[in-house]
Amino acid sequence: MKAQSTTADPALMRELNKSILLNLIRRQGSVSRADLAKETRLSRSTVSSIIDALLAEGLVQESGAGESKGGRRPILVNFNYRAGSVIGVDLGATHILVVVTDLGANVRAQAVREEFSISNGPEAALEEVSRLVSQALRAAGVSLDRVMGLGIGVPGPLNYSAGMVIAPPIMPGWDGIPLRARLGSQYKIPVYLDNDANLGALAEKWHGAGRGRDNLAYIKVGTGIGCGLFFDGEIYRGETGSAGEIGHIMLDEAGPPCKCGSYGCLESMAGGPAIAQRAEQAIRAGQRTALQRLARDHGLTAKDVADAAAAGDELSQQLYREAGRLIGVAIADLINLLNPGMVVIGGGVAVAGELLLGPIRQTVQSRALRASVNSTQIVQAQLGREVTAIGAATLVLQEAFRSPDLTIQMQL
Amino acid sequence: MKAQSTTADPALMRELNKSILLNLIRRQGSVSRADLAKETRLSRSTVSSIIDALLAEGLVQESGAGESKGGRRPILVNFNYRAGSVIGVDLGATHILVVVTDLGANVRAQAVREEFSISNGPEAALEEVSRLVSQALRAAGVSLDRVMGLGIGVPGPLNYSAGMVIAPPIMPGWDGIPLRARLGSQYKIPVYLDNDANLGALAEKWHGAGRGRDNLAYIKVGTGIGCGLFFDGEIYRGETGSAGEIGHIMLDEAGPPCKCGSYGCLESMAGGPAIAQRAEQAIRAGQRTALQRLARDHGLTAKDVADAAAAGDELSQQLYREAGRLIGVAIADLINLLNPGMVVIGGGVAVAGELLLGPIRQTVQSRALRASVNSTQIVQAQLGREVTAIGAATLVLQEAFRSPDLTIQMQL
Repeated sequence: MKAQSTTADPALMRELNKSILLNLIRRQGSVSRADLAKETRLSRSTVSSIIDALLAEGLVQESGAGESKGGRRPILVNFNYRAGSVIGVDLGATHILVVVTDLGANVRAQAVREEFSISNGPEAALEEVSRLVSQALRAAGVSLDRVMGLGIGVPGPLNYSAGMVIAPPIMPGWDGIPLRARLGSQYKIPVYLDNDANLGALAEKWHGAGRGRDNLAYIKVGTGIGCGLFFDGEIYRGETGSAGEIGHIMLDEAGPPCKCGSYGCLESMAGGPAIAQRAEQAIRAGQRTALQRLARDHGLTAKDVADAAAAGDELSQQLYREAGRLIGVAIADLINLLNPGMVVIGGGVAVAGELLLGPIRQTVQSRALRASVNSTQIVQAQLGREVTAIGAATLVLQEAFRSPDLTIQMQL
Repeated sequence: MKAQSTTADPALMRELNKSILLNLIRRQGSVSRADLAKETRLSRSTVSSIIDALLAEGLVQESGAGESKGGRRPILVNFNYRAGSVIGVDLGATHILVVVTDLGANVRAQAVREEFSISNGPEAALEEVSRLVSQALRAAGVSLDRVMGLGIGVPGPLNYSAGMVIAPPIMPGWDGIPLRARLGSQYKIPVYLDNDANLGALAEKWHGAGRGRDNLAYIKVGTGIGCGLFFDGEIYRGETGSAGEIGHIMLDEAGPPCKCGSYGCLESMAGGPAIAQRAEQAIRAGQRTALQRLARDHGLTAKDVADAAAAGDELSQQLYREAGRLIGVAIADLINLLNPGMVVIGGGVAVAGELLLGPIRQTVQSRALRASVNSTQIVQAQLGREVTAIGAATLVLQEAFRSPDLTIQMQL
C-alpha cells in the first residue's frame, strides 16, 4: 500500500478514470454507461469516450440491453475475462501444480507433478515448473504472448519485494535464490512471488469463503502451518514480506524441537507429520487402532489418520482432536492480536473438516477474549487443491489492474 | 482505512488540493509557494489561491524569506500549530492524566489525578475527567470553543466505531457504557476513543521512537500488557476495534488463571502485579533480598522490584529477567505473525530499561524466524508518562486532518 501525494493533471486523471471504470465493470458484472456515469460522477461523454477506448482494447465488451428505466433499454458493458490469460504456479512441499486462468482467475487448464519434493532444490524444481507451464499453456490453447503475468507460491517465508525466499525451514537449498528474477528473465512477463498461505488468503477472499470480508486470516494446515493475512483490501506482508508465520507460535517451552531451531512451535506439534508421528508412537506403545496394519506396511501420513478417524477409529479421532485443540490455542492468540473477522482453515490436514474445526472452535471460544471472539467466524476453506495456484493467478491480476494510487495520508 | 471509488469534480478537487497542500506544509515545516507548486504539479495560481484561503483561516502563516534560487528570496509559509487546541485524556488503570496540546500535539498544559482506580466505575471516573479537563484548559488559557476535539484512551478492548469498551478485564462496570457518545454530548466537540496501547503506538510513531517507520508494534507493559499495531500509515484495529491484545497470548496451558477467564496468559505471568507477587512468594519461601523490609511495611509493586534490581538485588534482577523472557516469547510470536519492522516497548514496567529489554531481545533472537527477526528492531519507548494522552491528542489531529480518500482498490 504505497502512498504518494499527488494531484490531478489531465493525463493522470484520464488514466485514473479509466482504471476506476474498468474496476467498476469488473466488480459489477454488467453495467450501463449511464449507471457508470452516475456512480463515478463523471460526465456521460467522458464515460463514453473511455468505454470506447476499452472496447477497442478488448478489455470490455457489450452484452445486450439491460432493463429500461423509462426510455430506450440501455446497452450493457461487461469485463472481457477472455481478453488474456494468467499463469499460476503452486510450488508445494511435495508437488507442483500449474494453472492457466482467464482474467477472472477461472481455471482453463492445469498440469500437475505429484510426489515431487521441494527439497530437490531450485534447479530440479524450476525445470519441472517450466515443463508444467508449457504443458498447461498447450492444454489451454494459449500462447505465451497472451499471458499477462505469472504468479508463484512457495511454502516458506520470503522477502516480497526482493522476490526470494529467506531461510525457509522446509526448503533446503532455496535460501536467497532470486526466484522472481529468474522466472522473469525466462518468460519475459511480470512475475510475482508470494508464500502459499498469503495466496490462499487472496484466493479465499476473492473466490471462496471470504467473499465480501474486509479482514480475514487464512490458516493453511499441511506439512507446515502457515497463515495469510488479508486486511483492508490487501495482503498484509509486514516490513519485509515474511508476516504470517503462525506455525512458529510457541505453545510449549518444553515441547519438541522444530525445524526452525526453536522448541514447541505449533507446526512441530500439530502439523501433518506431527499427527502421523504421534499415531506411530501410540502404536509402538501398544494402543489398539485401525492404523496398525497400515503402519506395518509403510510409514503413516496425516491423511491415513484422517481416513481412519472418519471411519470411526478412536485413536485417530483423538489425535485430530488434540491437533485441533493446539491449532485452536494459536488461533486464539491470533484472534486476540488481530481481531480478524473471519478465520478460514485450509490445507491438506483441514480436509478432515469438523473433526479438526470442532476442537478449534471450542478452544477459541474458551481461550480468546470475548471482544474479538464474538465477531470472528471460523470456517472451512471452500477452494480445493488448486487454491494456491488460483491465488497466484489472482495476485498477478491484482497487481496488473492496480489503479494509480491517490491516497493522501496524514503526516503529522 | 476506508476506500471509496470516486473521481474528480471541481469542488472535490479543490478540497483535495487544499488538503494536500496543508498536509505538505504540516510535514515540511517551512516551504515556499513555488516548491509547493513543483511538488504537487499544481499551477502557481492554484497554489496561491489556496494558500490565501488557508492564511485567511489562520491555518498557515508566513514566516519570512527563504533562500533565493536566483531571483527574489521567496516568502515561506508554515503550519500554524497555534491555530487551535486539542484535549488528550489518559484514563489509566490507577490514574487519570489530561493534556491540552496545540495542533502539533505539543503539550501546553496538563492535569493529573494520582491513585484513582478505574474500578471506581464510569460515573466517578467521568466526573474526575471533567474536573481535570477544566483544570487543564484553565492552565493552558484555552477556552473550549478553540478546541478541535477530545481523544481518550482506556486500558481495555473496545469497539472503535461504537466508541465503547467491551468486556474489559481490568475495568469492571464499564462494559457497554457509550463513552464516546457521553463525552461528545457533554463537550459538543468531536470525541475519539481508543485503547491506551493503540494511542501509545500512534504517539511513538509520530513523536517518538517510531518516527519514519511504516510498520511498528508498541507493547505497553504495565498493570496489563497491551499492544498497538501501526501498519501502512494507520492504526490497525481489526474487524471491531479490539486488535492488539498480546497480553492474552497463552504461554503456559497449566499457568495461573487470568482475569480474562483463560489460563497462563502473558499478562498473568509477566504484568506488573505478577512480578510483585512473585517477589512476595520468594520472600515467603525464605529467599534473601533487599525487598524484605519493604514487603513487611506494605505490599510490593513492580516498581519496588525494579528499584531493588537497579540497586543490585539479585532476586529482583532475576524476576525481571524472567518477565523479560516471557514477554520475549510473546514478542517472538508477534514478530513471526506480523514482521513489524520495529517493536517499541513502553509502559510502567518498561522503565526498568535494559533489565527488561535485554532478556526480551535475547529470547526473540533465539525464538523468532530469521526472515523476520533480522528486520525487526526492538527499542525502548521515548515518550514518558504522557504517551497515552499525547496519543489521544494525535488521534484527534489524524481524524481532523484526514484528506478526502481517493484510494481506488482493485475488486476482482
